[in-house]
Amino acid sequence: MWDKIKHFIVGPPLPTQQYAYRRLSKIRALAAFSPDALSSIAYANQEIYLGLVVAGSVGLSYSLPIASAIIVLLAIVTVSYFQTIHAYPSGGGSYTVARENLGSITGLVAATALIIDYTLTAAVSLTAGAEAIASAFPQLWSFRVHISILVLFAITIINLRGLRETGTCMAIPVYLFLFTYLPMLAYGAVKVVIGERPLPTTGFTPQATQPLTLFLLLHTFSTGCTALTGIEAISNGVPAFHHPESKNAARTLVIMAMLMGVLFLGSIWLTDALDVAPGPQETILSALARRLLGSGPCYLAIQSFTMLILVVAANTSFADFPRVAAILANDHFLPHQLANLGDRLVFTNGIILLALVTGALIVGFAGVTHALIPLFAVGAFLAYTLSQLGMVVHWWRERGRGWVLKAILNGIGASATAIILFIVSISKFLEGAWVTILLMQILLIGFLRIRSHYRDVIEQLSLRDVPPPLLKRFPPLRVVIPIAGVNRATIDAISYAKSISNDVRAVYVELSPGEGRRIQEEWQRYQIDVPLVVLPSPYRSIVGPFLEYLDELDRKYDDGQLAAVVLPEWVPARWWHSLLHNQTARLIKDALLYRRRHHGFQRVIIDVPYHLQR
Amino acid sequence: MWDKIKHFIVGPPLPTQQYAYRRLSKIRALAAFSPDALSSIAYANQEIYLGLVVAGSVGLSYSLPIASAIIVLLAIVTVSYFQTIHAYPSGGGSYTVARENLGSITGLVAATALIIDYTLTAAVSLTAGAEAIASAFPQLWSFRVHISILVLFAITIINLRGLRETGTCMAIPVYLFLFTYLPMLAYGAVKVVIGERPLPTTGFTPQATQPLTLFLLLHTFSTGCTALTGIEAISNGVPAFHHPESKNAARTLVIMAMLMGVLFLGSIWLTDALDVAPGPQETILSALARRLLGSGPCYLAIQSFTMLILVVAANTSFADFPRVAAILANDHFLPHQLANLGDRLVFTNGIILLALVTGALIVGFAGVTHALIPLFAVGAFLAYTLSQLGMVVHWWRERGRGWVLKAILNGIGASATAIILFIVSISKFLEGAWVTILLMQILLIGFLRIRSHYRDVIEQLSLRDVPPPLLKRFPPLRVVIPIAGVNRATIDAISYAKSISNDVRAVYVELSPGEGRRIQEEWQRYQIDVPLVVLPSPYRSIVGPFLEYLDELDRKYDDGQLAAVVLPEWVPARWWHSLLHNQTARLIKDALLYRRRHHGFQRVIIDVPYHLQR
Repeated sequence: MWDKIKHFIVGPPLPTQQYAYRRLSKIRALAAFSPDALSSIAYANQEIYLGLVVAGSVGLSYSLPIASAIIVLLAIVTVSYFQTIHAYPSGGGSYTVARENLGSITGLVAATALIIDYTLTAAVSLTAGAEAIASAFPQLWSFRVHISILVLFAITIINLRGLRETGTCMAIPVYLFLFTYLPMLAYGAVKVVIGERPLPTTGFTPQATQPLTLFLLLHTFSTGCTALTGIEAISNGVPAFHHPESKNAARTLVIMAMLMGVLFLGSIWLTDALDVAPGPQETILSALARRLLGSGPCYLAIQSFTMLILVVAANTSFADFPRVAAILANDHFLPHQLANLGDRLVFTNGIILLALVTGALIVGFAGVTHALIPLFAVGAFLAYTLSQLGMVVHWWRERGRGWVLKAILNGIGASATAIILFIVSISKFLEGAWVTILLMQILLIGFLRIRSHYRDVIEQLSLRDVPPPLLKRFPPLRVVIPIAGVNRATIDAISYAKSISNDVRAVYVELSPGEGRRIQEEWQRYQIDVPLVVLPSPYRSIVGPFLEYLDELDRKYDDGQLAAVVLPEWVPARWWHSLLHNQTARLIKDALLYRRRHHGFQRVIIDVPYHLQR
Repeated sequence: MWDKIKHFIVGPPLPTQQYAYRRLSKIRALAAFSPDALSSIAYANQEIYLGLVVAGSVGLSYSLPIASAIIVLLAIVTVSYFQTIHAYPSGGGSYTVARENLGSITGLVAATALIIDYTLTAAVSLTAGAEAIASAFPQLWSFRVHISILVLFAITIINLRGLRETGTCMAIPVYLFLFTYLPMLAYGAVKVVIGERPLPTTGFTPQATQPLTLFLLLHTFSTGCTALTGIEAISNGVPAFHHPESKNAARTLVIMAMLMGVLFLGSIWLTDALDVAPGPQETILSALARRLLGSGPCYLAIQSFTMLILVVAANTSFADFPRVAAILANDHFLPHQLANLGDRLVFTNGIILLALVTGALIVGFAGVTHALIPLFAVGAFLAYTLSQLGMVVHWWRERGRGWVLKAILNGIGASATAIILFIVSISKFLEGAWVTILLMQILLIGFLRIRSHYRDVIEQLSLRDVPPPLLKRFPPLRVVIPIAGVNRATIDAISYAKSISNDVRAVYVELSPGEGRRIQEEWQRYQIDVPLVVLPSPYRSIVGPFLEYLDELDRKYDDGQLAAVVLPEWVPARWWHSLLHNQTARLIKDALLYRRRHHGFQRVIIDVPYHLQR
């Protein structure tokens, strides 16, 4: 039944051989990997506005210079990743590049940064999306958390259904956004150029509450740099492109970067030129759209598409997080379950893990994007820096044609992102960057401990230094049968026990006084020729006294062999029937399994199921 | 480790022999069983006010007559239960009385009513408590759900620690409430009697928005009857009193009823005489207290104590619900787990179940008492009616000294509560009583189906008609060993399998192509003299292909005997290590256990654990 539900939600399982064919065309790949990068204007603009407005109109006049600086940075980072895509056609995520060129610990640092970055991308995109739609419908403003969680749930299901479905489903909103937002910006540009002056601001003149300091500008710049998050996505996903993978991926990267530049700079410029100011429950982009289009259907369409592209931006994380987690799991740094290909050929466990953590972030931060942003950029820029540094080393090692130029280009990228990383860490440390920095350290230690556990297990299970003979000789077992009553299941278990041993005894743990005597009488009535031991249990535990009895028996014989346990277990006809029964057999099995025994023969646990028909 | 946490929260386990000694003195018993009854003035007053205020000042003038009618009813019900307590010294809950005198189905109907009533008592008391404290601190008004849930959590823990602790912890608030509320009413009475007239109402004159109809009066009367909920508690808990149980319990009942009467009638009369009117985020009792005491520390103390007694009222449910659930479980109408005495000699599972359902109600109804009330009284009055009817039959059957008088008294009680039940069901049907009525039917059907399941199980397991010989003869088993690799755990399992059978084979399910060949090579390298079968798995499932192989093997031999499975299971040194591993062994065991086999010998499942040291 559980299988049926699962198939209904995620679809029937797909055979492994289909795996290689599930790739994306450029149109679909742009939709799958770019939304994070494209949609980051939604929160980056907002952060620049909120960062500067405290310094009044003078402060806001710096928005265009800051945006221009970010665009220069965008160009540098794009060139860097262009090179990475060609150098690593099998997928050049920061983890791979940093590990191969800078050593495995540095690679791991990049991986922690990525893991955190992807999670925050999902959370920030969803909350910003909810804010975009709630700007248009003020009555939704207090339900932003609910909206985000609902959308998160939908995205999770879609991703569990598999990559191709993801591509189809996500392509439409991306292009809807582009084909409405770009014309709107063009319309605004025409308006400004043909000379429309700012309307008299309706009662709003931003008052400076803080002085315009260098720190304030740097702080705003660093929060604005969240506009750059998401460029990384394509370099990680190169193998998902059609052949020739690198070329297709690189072209898509360039198109994406150009679109980002136009959207970001265009909207900042128009906001500045038209003196746009948002209401109390509204984003700056919403205010811009309202200023240009009024509050009619065009405005509503723009806000809806902004929300939709932010939703598919969260999807970028769902495409990449499970992939990185699977790579780490294959390298034994994360639980192996994260590397399991699910029924639909996606990393099901990674998707579910991301959904849970993202949901916790949204609820924990009450759906407020502005509160999440300070945690955000540290991870992204650390990953960028390490990846570019790795590329410098890569070119230096390879020394192919034109390696010096390539190394210099990546070197510029590394320096630029390192500077941003420094600015971000310092200027947002107290606001939340410390959380990210601390978390990265915890993750790093966790990764290393997980790997050392896996190594321990392999070493302990290895046959390398087992002295011959490999196979031991098990003597016939002493058998103990815990019974809950005298019934058919008990009889089956006793029958089986007698077929493997001559030393069989049954044990009954008496929870309330008098029950033991009753069982003894039944035992005699049915003339079962196996001794029955009744154990008292003053604290009403069945497992405790039973285990003590086993220990006592082992001590008595003292031959290094442990008594085996044969469990009569009757199995209900329907799984939900088990809700109606004490799971004593299961408790005993678990207790036996997890009690540690280090010498001699093992304690064998033998389950003799008896199936009920109804 | 789990045990340590549990002991820290609920305390160390207590031996069964202590059970009989954990009883309550009258002072403690009053505190344990009366708060529900005493505190119901908090919501009954509020409901009467809300019911009448829609008919304006004229409507409100009916509050005193309605309250007086309810007091008459209180007296009738008290006399009825006084007789019940003496007739059933071992605990005369509605379920027991109705079942013994009116048949088991009627008893069950009473039980469903009680179960629902106790749950709603807990929910309503907690939300009303949160409203009482939020009336004093308006900034808490929007956090009423949080307050209720927090308190619910605390009550649950306290109850899990055991009955005596409950008594101590709950006695103080009850007496604090009584020793402040009664003096306040007395003070108010003096004020009114020495002639203080109502102050000119500050801008508040209740406007009639509905005509004053008979339906409105009946409706208000029926919601006001929630004041009577909780009288039942003592009759259910007679065995918890010191010797002589019945006498002590009956005295406590009379004292409780008198306190209820004074509190209820006193507060209604003062509210009426002083023309008290509440603010928008305030209860009527809060308004009364504020009117008498101002907004100073005395008022805050009264509101705090009102909240505290409502909290301990919720506790009444925690004392009674698990008890009734355990009785039903012992009669096979509810899962047997509800009858298990926990470590602290309380019905742990019942307490946890009540906490979960109450929490869901509070969250579902957003912590609004007024929304919960319509669901409430149906259950209580149905239980009262059936219990009193049962008593009439009881006296008629016994025909002891003065049985006619006793039967008449209980008959009056039954008629009165039946009338109320009728009024409540009709007047609040659409507002929510239908939910309760529907739920009661679902519960009733559930109870019957659960019992029929238990009967099925007993019948199927019974040895009564098993043909001799009782013990079967198991032939040596064919053994299949699913392996995940060639390691020490595998070797142990093979060793054991060879000790019980000459027909042993290992099976490896290949998830990715090429792995099977690698395992085969290792197999040959270590010269393991057992055949190894490699199974392909196109859909990456381990369990599926393995089970199919077993079936195939069984078909091949076709001797009615099923192949046994020996599982090599290596057990990690720490439980949390298992988070790092695919639980394949567990999946296989569960799949084998739950696959139904109806003929011949059973499929024996043999677990050979291999314990890792670190």
